[in-house]
Amino acid sequence: MMGKQSVAYTEPPVITARASVAGKKEMEGPLGRLFDEIVEDPMAGQNTWEEAESTLQEKVVQHLLKKANVSAQDVRYILSGDLLGQLIASSFGLAKFQIPFFGLFGACSTMGEGMALGSMLVEGGCADRVIAITSSHFASAEKQFRFPLEYGNQRPLSATWTVTGSGGVMLEKAVGNNAGYSGKICIKGVTTGKIVDYGVKDSLNMGASMAPACAELLYANLTDFGVGADYYDRIFTGDLGYVGQRILIDLMKEKGVDISKVHSDCGMIIFDQDTQDTHAGGSGCGCAAVTLCAYILRQMEEGKYKRVLFVPTGALMSPVSFNEGRSIPGIAHGIVLERI
Amino acid sequence: MMGKQSVAYTEPPVITARASVAGKKEMEGPLGRLFDEIVEDPMAGQNTWEEAESTLQEKVVQHLLKKANVSAQDVRYILSGDLLGQLIASSFGLAKFQIPFFGLFGACSTMGEGMALGSMLVEGGCADRVIAITSSHFASAEKQFRFPLEYGNQRPLSATWTVTGSGGVMLEKAVGNNAGYSGKICIKGVTTGKIVDYGVKDSLNMGASMAPACAELLYANLTDFGVGADYYDRIFTGDLGYVGQRILIDLMKEKGVDISKVHSDCGMIIFDQDTQDTHAGGSGCGCAAVTLCAYILRQMEEGKYKRVLFVPTGALMSPVSFNEGRSIPGIAHGIVLERI
Repeated sequence: MMGKQSVAYTEPPVITARASVAGKKEMEGPLGRLFDEIVEDPMAGQNTWEEAESTLQEKVVQHLLKKANVSAQDVRYILSGDLLGQLIASSFGLAKFQIPFFGLFGACSTMGEGMALGSMLVEGGCADRVIAITSSHFASAEKQFRFPLEYGNQRPLSATWTVTGSGGVMLEKAVGNNAGYSGKICIKGVTTGKIVDYGVKDSLNMGASMAPACAELLYANLTDFGVGADYYDRIFTGDLGYVGQRILIDLMKEKGVDISKVHSDCGMIIFDQDTQDTHAGGSGCGCAAVTLCAYILRQMEEGKYKRVLFVPTGALMSPVSFNEGRSIPGIAHGIVLERI
Repeated sequence: MMGKQSVAYTEPPVITARASVAGKKEMEGPLGRLFDEIVEDPMAGQNTWEEAESTLQEKVVQHLLKKANVSAQDVRYILSGDLLGQLIASSFGLAKFQIPFFGLFGACSTMGEGMALGSMLVEGGCADRVIAITSSHFASAEKQFRFPLEYGNQRPLSATWTVTGSGGVMLEKAVGNNAGYSGKICIKGVTTGKIVDYGVKDSLNMGASMAPACAELLYANLTDFGVGADYYDRIFTGDLGYVGQRILIDLMKEKGVDISKVHSDCGMIIFDQDTQDTHAGGSGCGCAAVTLCAYILRQMEEGKYKRVLFVPTGALMSPVSFNEGRSIPGIAHGIVLERI
């Protein structure tokens, strides 16, 4: 325990496996070759988009179990959530594994929420092995939050494109002083986000609703750990996109911190803005999750980065509150990753 | 760590404060005099039912802070969720406290999910003080899950009545070998639920969808802790109601365990079935939460029960999956409570 919002681990949990499954559009983007599996059919062979999204989570768990060479019974808890009301992508996708389940909702920050809680359970001795996973699907999200796809609405340039994909990690207690984990990535600590509401009401500009929460989280992390932005080889935020990134960099400058040299955003990595018509970038729980599991962790394993701060960001929007004229509060969670 | 699904704590976190706020119908029920505050106006002075539900959570946190004599800054994490899509009752109700936030969804089992994770964080050393809280509201739930209130549909006898209320507990690390906590209640251990799907599709018979998950949880708890049902002075399940209780008792008999002498259900305690026209009983996240915080913990503090198993149950139903013809899976979480 340390600082106001952060914990630093004395025995950092290790990411022993990572897996990602994504859709066709994601395959055509810059990370296309890095995913463990591509599901080209938007329905994933199911009857509904929601079932398709469930299938993505199911496949990720299968990859994780295979990579870690364990069975579902060996996993103590699974921490999962998604954007859909009552988390139906998660509950229908994961039921078959019969792993004790904690349902989470942090909007597009859910990967961070799951890794935060999961690593706390492992470090605190309540679990030796957990899975943190999340997903999103372009069509199930548009149906729930915006317009029917058939309506064919025009998307403003501030709009992001919900990633069809699921990413997950297996977190384990390190055995024997980390000796066997060379080249693996561990979670050194966590900064947990607060709900931040600047009154943004535009459901087609999620970057603006999340950037303030992200800035406060970043500042809390640097303060709690007593470091500058350059302590990290890279800071990857969740799906702020091009619009949100500009706001974040400005907000951080107001706090006296220049992150412009070390900052990347998952929403700007997952798609090619010039050729894929995704406007402000990628979004959805799956955006940060697949970018982490396919790209960031791989870059770290390959030695490109030693120390990374991963900050998925969430817009706590609901169709009900949106239609009632409420604002869209944001939240972000920070995960301190380090190569062993 | 122990058993397959359970943890037993060596330093059990203490419930240092409990609070409940409920509506008019709950006030008229058997527990009416035990709540900390009654909000008779279904709108709680707000513009929408969702905002009213947020207000209930806000009031509970205020009561908890006052009772524990701490400020919001002294609370490490708040773990909360509700039935509404994207947890808007929680996020709009709790934002003002600026406490690091973990959003949870376990349907009506959420109080158990929050107490499970919260106690793990405290026992594991990641927090010294957390709040676990949840809520439900009759009108916001009916609007989301069933029929518009104005439609005035007939309710079958298997239907339950969503409780308007919020309950929460403050969990703290015990200081100095429990000496100062005589008469307080601690969390001795936790059994975490799996998603159980028996294919029930009737949204007006939630008891039937939750009873199988509850039976599996109970059996896992007794097995993991190596005890019989009579180890507990009382087993309080979440909101199974009259229909669900009969199924639960039968399912447990099939497993060779007779719980009929020690079992009570929060859904059968909160309302008077004869006079309040609530059919199968109370339900909603608020049902188990306010019954725990107003009644069960009080009974324990007064010495009526030394050892209690609290098992809130959730039906993982969504309007989307329901309309797509899917089943309603269930989940339950078990919290082992003991008087110090």
